[in-house]
Amino acid sequence: MKKFEEKTIKSEAIFSGKIIQLQVDDVLLPDGKEAKREIVKHPGAVAIIALTAENKIIMVEQYRKPLERSLLEIPAGKLEVGEEPKLTAERELEEETGYRAGNIEHLISFYTSPGFANELLHLYIATNLEKVENPLAGDEDEFVELHELSLDDALKAVETKWIYDAKTAYAVQYLQMKLAMISK
Amino acid sequence: MKKFEEKTIKSEAIFSGKIIQLQVDDVLLPDGKEAKREIVKHPGAVAIIALTAENKIIMVEQYRKPLERSLLEIPAGKLEVGEEPKLTAERELEEETGYRAGNIEHLISFYTSPGFANELLHLYIATNLEKVENPLAGDEDEFVELHELSLDDALKAVETKWIYDAKTAYAVQYLQMKLAMISK
Repeated sequence: MKKFEEKTIKSEAIFSGKIIQLQVDDVLLPDGKEAKREIVKHPGAVAIIALTAENKIIMVEQYRKPLERSLLEIPAGKLEVGEEPKLTAERELEEETGYRAGNIEHLISFYTSPGFANELLHLYIATNLEKVENPLAGDEDEFVELHELSLDDALKAVETKWIYDAKTAYAVQYLQMKLAMISK
Repeated sequence: MKKFEEKTIKSEAIFSGKIIQLQVDDVLLPDGKEAKREIVKHPGAVAIIALTAENKIIMVEQYRKPLERSLLEIPAGKLEVGEEPKLTAERELEEETGYRAGNIEHLISFYTSPGFANELLHLYIATNLEKVENPLAGDEDEFVELHELSLDDALKAVETKWIYDAKTAYAVQYLQMKLAMISK
């Protein structure tokens, strides 16, 4: 896992914010030359494929400032320091959707943008959902609207680019594959 | 697509590098309060699912400084300014693998980390591959090793986290789904 390792010669801290940090590293390449690497540090995140009893997938619509538009995404949120990802998934599901899951299982984890960021996203599947009477409150600067989509609706939303991010595209494809396998 | 729009009050440029730019925006929330948004600007990228005649998938192993480890990924690269993504895909495929594709088609595009970055990734499928005698040279600070994996090998590499990024996980799942559909 260290193939073509790039040793750090110097690391310059550029920015430390509420969510991300930015640094620029001078590295020594395998051929002895030097290069610069721009690196965004991120605490990591979770996302949840939450399925209702009717096999609808719960999604949240929210504004994404970096894109200057809103997207329809599966529920997700950042890890708190030291928090176990599964607990983050349960918390975010309740905060964003008002549901608690009778069953929640890890599906896969992946880095979202390994070229410039270390964000690792942990994806869970939640079933046996139950509506909570007084759900945990979400972040006060987060505004989301809930939607429940059938697989067909979700596939259409991918076509129209209402769904337009990696984790949600992965989730929709996952459900599509499951259905293809079940109907074999 | 403007639901819960966050209007920009002020935008502060923090960093402008070779690959990314960072800015912090003060925004006006839908409830009239204010918040800060940390935003990474990225030129966008392409990635290519390149399939050999034997249905093996071509991958490149490379060191990812933000993770301090190497990953096995489908070939990918950043967009040059004004470059048509399909041309970028053809160029990157040749540079990183030495192959030219008789057929290359757009599969899907998605934002990799919409919470903090505007990187849009365009995914292509390349088939009818032909080895080029004198392929285009890649970036001189990029060191990659080629691998050809069967679907089974790729699924194992996901298990062992040698494959560990969103676009490659999506690509492997795509092939898995295609196979499930064909064998129906």
